[in-house]
Amino acid sequence: MRPLMVLEIHGLLLGSIITTFVRVSKGQAAHNMPTHQYPRSLTETPTSPCTQKAPESLVISDADFQQEDANFLSRSERYDAAVRKSAQMILKLREYGISDPEEIYAYKNCVHRGRPEPLDLHLGMFLPTLLNQATPEQQEAFFMPAWNLEIIGTYAQTEMGHGTFIRGLETTATYDPATQEFVMNSPTISSIKWWPGGLGKTSNHAIVLAQLYTKGICHGLHAFIVPIRSMSTHEPLPGIEVGDIGPKFGFDEVDNGYLKMDNVRIPRMNMLMKYAKVERDGTYQKPPSAKLTYGTMVFIRSMIVGESSRALSKACTIAIRYSSVRHQSELRPGEPEPQILDYQTQQYKLFPLLATAYAFKFVGQYMTETYHRITGDINQGDFSELPELHALSAGLKAFTTWVANGGIEVCRMSCGGHGYSRCSSLPDIYVTFTPTCTYEGENTVMMLQTARYLVKSYRQASTGQQLSGIVSYLNEAHQRLQAQPVSSRPTVVNISDLASLVEAYKLRAAKLVEVAAKSLQGELQKSRSPEDAWNNSSIDLVRASDAHCHYVVVKLFAAKLGEISDTGVHSALSTLALLYALHGVAQNSGDFLQAGLLTVPQLSSVSQRLKDILAQVRTNAVALVDAFDYRDEMLNSVLGRYDGNIYEHMFEWARKSPLNRTEVHESYHKYLKPLQSKL
Amino acid sequence: MRPLMVLEIHGLLLGSIITTFVRVSKGQAAHNMPTHQYPRSLTETPTSPCTQKAPESLVISDADFQQEDANFLSRSERYDAAVRKSAQMILKLREYGISDPEEIYAYKNCVHRGRPEPLDLHLGMFLPTLLNQATPEQQEAFFMPAWNLEIIGTYAQTEMGHGTFIRGLETTATYDPATQEFVMNSPTISSIKWWPGGLGKTSNHAIVLAQLYTKGICHGLHAFIVPIRSMSTHEPLPGIEVGDIGPKFGFDEVDNGYLKMDNVRIPRMNMLMKYAKVERDGTYQKPPSAKLTYGTMVFIRSMIVGESSRALSKACTIAIRYSSVRHQSELRPGEPEPQILDYQTQQYKLFPLLATAYAFKFVGQYMTETYHRITGDINQGDFSELPELHALSAGLKAFTTWVANGGIEVCRMSCGGHGYSRCSSLPDIYVTFTPTCTYEGENTVMMLQTARYLVKSYRQASTGQQLSGIVSYLNEAHQRLQAQPVSSRPTVVNISDLASLVEAYKLRAAKLVEVAAKSLQGELQKSRSPEDAWNNSSIDLVRASDAHCHYVVVKLFAAKLGEISDTGVHSALSTLALLYALHGVAQNSGDFLQAGLLTVPQLSSVSQRLKDILAQVRTNAVALVDAFDYRDEMLNSVLGRYDGNIYEHMFEWARKSPLNRTEVHESYHKYLKPLQSKL
Repeated sequence: MRPLMVLEIHGLLLGSIITTFVRVSKGQAAHNMPTHQYPRSLTETPTSPCTQKAPESLVISDADFQQEDANFLSRSERYDAAVRKSAQMILKLREYGISDPEEIYAYKNCVHRGRPEPLDLHLGMFLPTLLNQATPEQQEAFFMPAWNLEIIGTYAQTEMGHGTFIRGLETTATYDPATQEFVMNSPTISSIKWWPGGLGKTSNHAIVLAQLYTKGICHGLHAFIVPIRSMSTHEPLPGIEVGDIGPKFGFDEVDNGYLKMDNVRIPRMNMLMKYAKVERDGTYQKPPSAKLTYGTMVFIRSMIVGESSRALSKACTIAIRYSSVRHQSELRPGEPEPQILDYQTQQYKLFPLLATAYAFKFVGQYMTETYHRITGDINQGDFSELPELHALSAGLKAFTTWVANGGIEVCRMSCGGHGYSRCSSLPDIYVTFTPTCTYEGENTVMMLQTARYLVKSYRQASTGQQLSGIVSYLNEAHQRLQAQPVSSRPTVVNISDLASLVEAYKLRAAKLVEVAAKSLQGELQKSRSPEDAWNNSSIDLVRASDAHCHYVVVKLFAAKLGEISDTGVHSALSTLALLYALHGVAQNSGDFLQAGLLTVPQLSSVSQRLKDILAQVRTNAVALVDAFDYRDEMLNSVLGRYDGNIYEHMFEWARKSPLNRTEVHESYHKYLKPLQSKL
Repeated sequence: MRPLMVLEIHGLLLGSIITTFVRVSKGQAAHNMPTHQYPRSLTETPTSPCTQKAPESLVISDADFQQEDANFLSRSERYDAAVRKSAQMILKLREYGISDPEEIYAYKNCVHRGRPEPLDLHLGMFLPTLLNQATPEQQEAFFMPAWNLEIIGTYAQTEMGHGTFIRGLETTATYDPATQEFVMNSPTISSIKWWPGGLGKTSNHAIVLAQLYTKGICHGLHAFIVPIRSMSTHEPLPGIEVGDIGPKFGFDEVDNGYLKMDNVRIPRMNMLMKYAKVERDGTYQKPPSAKLTYGTMVFIRSMIVGESSRALSKACTIAIRYSSVRHQSELRPGEPEPQILDYQTQQYKLFPLLATAYAFKFVGQYMTETYHRITGDINQGDFSELPELHALSAGLKAFTTWVANGGIEVCRMSCGGHGYSRCSSLPDIYVTFTPTCTYEGENTVMMLQTARYLVKSYRQASTGQQLSGIVSYLNEAHQRLQAQPVSSRPTVVNISDLASLVEAYKLRAAKLVEVAAKSLQGELQKSRSPEDAWNNSSIDLVRASDAHCHYVVVKLFAAKLGEISDTGVHSALSTLALLYALHGVAQNSGDFLQAGLLTVPQLSSVSQRLKDILAQVRTNAVALVDAFDYRDEMLNSVLGRYDGNIYEHMFEWARKSPLNRTEVHESYHKYLKPLQSKL
């Protein structure tokens, strides 16, 4: 479902993907060995400046990367500045010989302050796709020119009328054996390629996904390298209409673009033919397998879980620091205005989100580790765990991005009026993050993918099959739920015991998977088609996935505590884990009551316990956000300054506003002055 | 709590406030009769063009108001365009003799497409404050110059370090009897005036709220007219530092500003002295009462409830129309991609919000009617209902803005990738609306104000006092909750009967008010101070307010149905009301289970019933958003077009993007071309 769309929009995961390909290129997956590797200087330099100095320091101290606040620039200026910085970055990476892919990612992230940029898809999609899907001859022709930025490429999949359901794409590539060319067409308005990052103004080539027609038969989607702009003048080539899709909610630096093709002819060798092939005479050869693409998709979704934690932890850092600097109202008559962090309602907004940011951090780490472990297995030919990882990454991508998305806005609004100022950085964090809910698989679709796996597992458990991995609880829960009717089941939860809460989350998930499965079954018994039955149960299915993911998060948070030896850290994180778990119980109390896992009196105890925990967290709250370790230059937020010196810097920032460049704005002379004389 | 801050930021409610003052000026409240009235031509013209032609048509057909899409402009250009349109608007209003305040508001709203604009505070705050708080002599001096826009004013209350708690404001006005002047000062960084709309670049005067000192004594906050820019050159006056506070999340058209005063001397007559006075020798005379300000505050909050409905109904219109045009994925193999509105999950996102938009519309109407009724009473000297209206408007302002705020984002994200494009208008609706959660009383503070009234009423009910008005249910519920322990209470709800659901919402509210009151009591019994007890119970207090407001909304929606005679409309709205009520039960099922108002098996029936209702609403969904009656020109959304012709217009819009003004962006020549030659 919309695989790799994230990378069409920006190349967030550049470094990690390069990691993958470098690993591949080092021979760990010989069957997938590319002809070209990243140039030696880049992968083999033993010590780069980054090993002596963090990339942050390197960038922050570099005069070439100082520039005016992006908030003060028009979109065209922001695009311009981003291209300038990206060009500088490419030169510096080579100058410094920075070679480690993770270092490249860190460096790039610092240069662009975590924002997407116009070359993201060239670096994160175009080059890796060449390595992965091009034949040796194709790599010979395209890789080094692309490496040296003569060819600047993007990856064009999504169309104006087609996103998640990629089989619906309409762009065609029709083979003409007479000239040995493919004829590329955008047959309808809705088939115009839409959204790819860097497509609008930056790229001169695009890898285009199109329906392949040869000998009158459609063979489905394949990838083609299409030159779109002149290598000498950068003007669009004949038959090509290309441009920027216009301003968006955020992503001002990126020229997300459109591409309309009218009988554009490209040579046969421009179809990426490592797997599928079209012979000179037009004979088609099927590819052997699509499993590796599947793996990449899983990997990117796993990475987004970590991104949820980063975005939310930034927002929490800003809001919690500001709340300890801002004073407001009276708690006690005659006393000075207290820090707003002393208000219970403020704590109730922010501390559960702080706990969530930590929880997602650990889940993100788990996903990365699991991915690497399973990739190892896959390289040994063992694909057995891939379906589970696929289901987990889809659901957790949706679960964490939805929660973080809402949480960032809660943080912003907890800062009062100043949270609306761009100097807080909170609006920017939001608009940069919110697309994660949609790209790389729309969240509801993701939840339903996970639900499909859960229902399948539930049915297996019902027939007595022993499940493995994270869904194995469905065996146990099945027996348990069968054995005891709700009313007689003893209450299982000790609300002060994390292990007991993990158990309750598990049983809640099991219950909701059961509800969804039974809804499906009921629909089928009414003689509905499987598709209608699925659609008519989809609210329940999403709920089941949500509960499953929630259980996984609580479980992983609890498991993480076992790895921490420092008693102070252990204590602080245990408190956060309990807060996370109890807050979730309070927010979803209906589920826990309905499943008979909690009693009504226990719910009152949960409320009281939550209040006690908030007071406990208050003591460490600022230290807990400091521990995320964002430098002021990276956080880029006046409200979130480490030194708390907010008001002076807000004033200083405001004075630089473009409207203040002249004391009297020209509109006064143009409109107000003349108006005064007319009235 | 931050009264009138909304108007510092923008003058949304201009027309309505003028209504109020015009009503006053017509002698309906003789004790408050201002010396100046709005000029006769404006209030007495019998037929204006608007009575023959809706203001929408008047504006839409006016060539002077055609202009480039604001999304394509820089902030400075947007400010410039807004000043131009406002200046044009003032001329046209006078030219057409548009006099009815509601027509003025409608006209202004069309001209600026619902966006705030730089003259909002001049029209919506500066002029009315003069009418309301100036002496006859002061009106003589200031009103007509302000009416003729020689004086352009704003209203400066909020400071950088002080918002909601206005007693904490630090700006000083110290009377100097030697010169009969006030000396205005911003003694600290945090005392700099911050946020007032139109202050940055547009205004040459400001009404400044400052702590009045005379004869060495501080008499609290008073209002002063401070000239800030030269009437001839528009340059800042000596001692004044004034400017724009920089870019925000939205509000690009408005020059929200800062003002720092250093020993600025103003004549004694520049203090607004209709109520409080400072004599020549510095003797201070207290004002008689502050009740009218209180009334205005209540009024503005009531108006925001209607604004919640408008913003949410726009977002629903766009999302539901788009969802009936967009096709995606497969429901049945081999069949064409279905409309995404046929997916149950999409219906579950959008239809409860559609029902909410209708619910809030009726609540908004109720608030306006109630306000006018109670204003009538007040003019008769009867203030008895004001506390209830105050509590209701505070809570409903918070309740409706929070729900609408989240709902707009759900609508946006339900549109997939295209919801992120500015051409959808959804990002714009969000950033224009979201400040309502903060201004005119931060939402959590508002909820706590309502809670204070609820707890007070609960205590009265506990001691046997008979309550009147909307909280009278606390009497009944008190008896009921006392009489029956939870376990033996019969289940009260018939989930298909709206009246029965209203009853359940009522009892849920009563229960949560009780929980909050008991928490307070418990804290006090632990010998906490009243302030600490309040703070330690504030989570419960907010929950109680939330449940109270939810009850009020369900109740008013149900009551509205009684007024509808058309059977088709009645049937469609009854379905929506049931959807609204049942969805709320499902979302807050823990509360209903906890209060013993629902059984576990009933909850499953609620889920099933909700699915049935979604399918019912599907039939009328597009008609129900069409009924909100937004013209394409006002909705300004490619996705929400009435004719559904989305893709062609999206392409047309994108082509106009500023990045497409040249085929080759200058950054190519500046950075990419040189880079290619270096690598």
